[in-house]
Amino acid sequence: MMSRSATGRLRALTQTTARIVATRPNVLRTVAVPILNATRLYTTTVVPSTKKVIPYTVDKFPGHVRNENFKKITEQDVDFFKSLLGETGVVYKNEDDLFAFNTDWMNKFRGKSQLALKPKTTQQVSAIMKYCNDQKIAVVPQGGNTGLVGGSVPLFDEVVLSLQNMNNIRGFDDVSGVLSADAGCVLEVLDNWLGEKGYMMPLDLGAKGSCHIGGNIATNAGGLRLLRYGSLHGTVLGLEVVLPDGTILDNMATLRKDNTGYDLKQLFIGSEGTIGVVTGVSILTPHRSKAVNVALLGLNSFEDVQKAFTHSRKELSEILSAFEFWDINALEMFKKHAVTKAAMENEYPFYVLVETSGSNKDHDDEKLNNYLEKMMENEVAQDGVVAQDETQIRSLWAIREGFTEALGKEPAVYKYDISMPVPKIYECVEDMRAHLTQGGVLGKPDSAVIDVVAYGHVGDGNLHLNIAANRHDKKTSELIEPYLFEWVAKHKGSISAEHGLGVAKNEFLGYSKSPVMINMMKTIKNLFDPNGIMNPYKYLPTK
Amino acid sequence: MMSRSATGRLRALTQTTARIVATRPNVLRTVAVPILNATRLYTTTVVPSTKKVIPYTVDKFPGHVRNENFKKITEQDVDFFKSLLGETGVVYKNEDDLFAFNTDWMNKFRGKSQLALKPKTTQQVSAIMKYCNDQKIAVVPQGGNTGLVGGSVPLFDEVVLSLQNMNNIRGFDDVSGVLSADAGCVLEVLDNWLGEKGYMMPLDLGAKGSCHIGGNIATNAGGLRLLRYGSLHGTVLGLEVVLPDGTILDNMATLRKDNTGYDLKQLFIGSEGTIGVVTGVSILTPHRSKAVNVALLGLNSFEDVQKAFTHSRKELSEILSAFEFWDINALEMFKKHAVTKAAMENEYPFYVLVETSGSNKDHDDEKLNNYLEKMMENEVAQDGVVAQDETQIRSLWAIREGFTEALGKEPAVYKYDISMPVPKIYECVEDMRAHLTQGGVLGKPDSAVIDVVAYGHVGDGNLHLNIAANRHDKKTSELIEPYLFEWVAKHKGSISAEHGLGVAKNEFLGYSKSPVMINMMKTIKNLFDPNGIMNPYKYLPTK
Repeated sequence: MMSRSATGRLRALTQTTARIVATRPNVLRTVAVPILNATRLYTTTVVPSTKKVIPYTVDKFPGHVRNENFKKITEQDVDFFKSLLGETGVVYKNEDDLFAFNTDWMNKFRGKSQLALKPKTTQQVSAIMKYCNDQKIAVVPQGGNTGLVGGSVPLFDEVVLSLQNMNNIRGFDDVSGVLSADAGCVLEVLDNWLGEKGYMMPLDLGAKGSCHIGGNIATNAGGLRLLRYGSLHGTVLGLEVVLPDGTILDNMATLRKDNTGYDLKQLFIGSEGTIGVVTGVSILTPHRSKAVNVALLGLNSFEDVQKAFTHSRKELSEILSAFEFWDINALEMFKKHAVTKAAMENEYPFYVLVETSGSNKDHDDEKLNNYLEKMMENEVAQDGVVAQDETQIRSLWAIREGFTEALGKEPAVYKYDISMPVPKIYECVEDMRAHLTQGGVLGKPDSAVIDVVAYGHVGDGNLHLNIAANRHDKKTSELIEPYLFEWVAKHKGSISAEHGLGVAKNEFLGYSKSPVMINMMKTIKNLFDPNGIMNPYKYLPTK
Repeated sequence: MMSRSATGRLRALTQTTARIVATRPNVLRTVAVPILNATRLYTTTVVPSTKKVIPYTVDKFPGHVRNENFKKITEQDVDFFKSLLGETGVVYKNEDDLFAFNTDWMNKFRGKSQLALKPKTTQQVSAIMKYCNDQKIAVVPQGGNTGLVGGSVPLFDEVVLSLQNMNNIRGFDDVSGVLSADAGCVLEVLDNWLGEKGYMMPLDLGAKGSCHIGGNIATNAGGLRLLRYGSLHGTVLGLEVVLPDGTILDNMATLRKDNTGYDLKQLFIGSEGTIGVVTGVSILTPHRSKAVNVALLGLNSFEDVQKAFTHSRKELSEILSAFEFWDINALEMFKKHAVTKAAMENEYPFYVLVETSGSNKDHDDEKLNNYLEKMMENEVAQDGVVAQDETQIRSLWAIREGFTEALGKEPAVYKYDISMPVPKIYECVEDMRAHLTQGGVLGKPDSAVIDVVAYGHVGDGNLHLNIAANRHDKKTSELIEPYLFEWVAKHKGSISAEHGLGVAKNEFLGYSKSPVMINMMKTIKNLFDPNGIMNPYKYLPTK
């Protein structure tokens, strides 16, 4: 576990240390060649993170009470699990070994579990669930543990059911592009494996080096390719799920079309381990594009960001594969923890990363160049650079993917992941800054809040709003919530666009869903999990 | 109703009569210009269809017994509905007016309902459902009534709840491309409306002139654009649904990303009106492509069809928007009812229709031409023609879309819509021909079976297998079923890829879904509709 997890984190760090290279600034204004030559943009040096002592979630977010209906683990229970999984499949009462199962990757949530189980087969998962259901033992399914809302770690003494030892690829059909795999396969491993066959995973996210495909499905991960390849509700063709009573629901279809009854698998996509354990996945994978281009634009306003987006959908259309933005505050945060050197000649209030993926490099270059020229001529963009090779592409992406890591190095971060109509995105950020300044926690040297940082997926109306602070304090918290949730609700947005609910957002569900919807969700939860043993205290409101 | 429905049918007929024009055969072999000039391919004259006397479904498919728990409609009930909807919203005991509500468009299924209701608002639908649930009156929700499995017409005296008067567009956001509309909007009307704004519906099917978007969602319609834009599970962003007890489930989100709880709307996509009435839809619409090309290829074998498909995914990649095939038998069937004249110089055992949609005509022409040249050079395709303008594009599509209509003119048709791994598709057709010949119902002048006709969506592994016959007879039926379903089950296919279950396929669900899955479906059905009033006798197995 530790080494795999460590590898995942290492990958992110390596990305941050990568030399980020781009083109001479402003050359696009007098563009003579379709794609520009590159010079250095940033050189980064990582500030190593120090291991912190992490408070327990139940101390940090008080108000949670252990449900005494749940059985406390006994030696007999442990013996049963050892007989089922062998000694190596059970981690019990070993504080060091259990740390990684009890703690999320951001070191924000920490549980008190004394037992983690590592089954290797669906049958073992089924036997574990049947036993736990009969005994009323609470269970937290865990994938790569890269979530951001504390959904994958326990609060109290719930048993951690890790899928890390279920990591076999089950099959691949290279006519249809349908991949079948165990839930515990790491996203990046699958993507690399497919790469050799000319295919790719239809989703991509910063945590790809650690996150599991099963966890991606349980949390309905969105990420960087959603704009192009759509959501998992469309790309997942089949699931194998173990229900709370141990029943194996075999819905591992590999068919693109199958209209035979209710599409039950959909319920588990985004259910965060509350009604079943995803053990197997079949997913439609697209062909890997022969040509990938990445451009970075500097812009003066969010209005210009929107103009650039609208044009990109028209001009780049079928080859547009990502349209990401960040503000200068996000860039400053990145530079703070990556010790950057040199950039575009000037700095701009907004940046946009445009990615195209297509089958013909010449065609794509022409489309992208036409688009970029138009953006520069019309002064929508003030400056632009285009990556010249795979290394430069990775380097540009490393900025976008480095914000989470950089923010993690701040003393405290309030993280929000919201969606709303595109024109509202930055109004929300500016409102929050004004609100915090007015509230007296932002803008002075000794203010609690360090900065309000914004980035996200413009194409999906998805804003990652991060408030970096010197400390978590009551005044700041109360200024942010429920103010932000009310703001989002007023504009018919979502209080959790892609991170999910977990233990961090569950009590705020009412800001995005009606009482009728929440009641129906509770009915579904009770139907599948009448004993409530699956991932308790999370997802749905407890109050 | 009659005029709207008639319009829909008229459109299909008009398509069939359209002059179908294509290029000089074999010119691609010595191609000098990227896109070829066109000459005439077909001239068609329609054989008018005569109105048949249609037997009742319960007489044609015996074994169904009216559930006596359902209340028979009384004058008091009718008075209630008239007070709610006005006189014009209620059709009662008028055989002529009720005919269109009782009969499907293929004239295959016919119910005995004496009452059809035409609400104009979601609140009226809610009041109807609450009343019917309280009174235990069975209800059949009905959209454009273009289904092929009898799902949208009653069997006995169920009340027909038609959505035809709920046809307002609710809103459109032209930054995100999200459309919100009433369930009763006709698909083609929405597509045309969006066309004026540079957008399009993400689905397309032969029945587009009549089918409702609500019906599309209730049946999880697939159709011709699925290859490119994915399934409704991915493109539908929000639904408004009236539950059987009249509760309005407002899940009309317009957000691309929203991970706040179970994605309940997914349950209603493909539920065929058995757990709720879809009244409103919000859906993600793509930009209308500036350039559309359609090519028709003649091929010698299904192996070549597969080769052409695999290459198209690599070469045409992001601009590939359809890849359809049919066999010579399907073409002969089309010609039989369209009185064709002239074709490609030669005829071929297989035909493939390739459509590309992109943002740059020159780029797309080059890609398509490279692809076609390669297919001709490598002798994967024996001949090929490319449509030169919108009229020719429509004409080529009219062949593909005309098969259903043509088959409808045969004395009897056994229709199957199955999916399976692509390499198995045509093996299934050849097996069926051999099986019917061996069984003595195919191959002689007086055989019951006229022909076995195949066409479908190669990219989706979706085969439309049609057995045209001189009459429905017991011997033929028993030769086809369960033989075909067993064949499909053996190859892990679906017995209903896109048509759904209705009253025609519900008893065969076990060939595609496990007992665990079917039990879970029944649990879901009972949860939402404990009185079983929604679209009874259909969808799930009754035995």
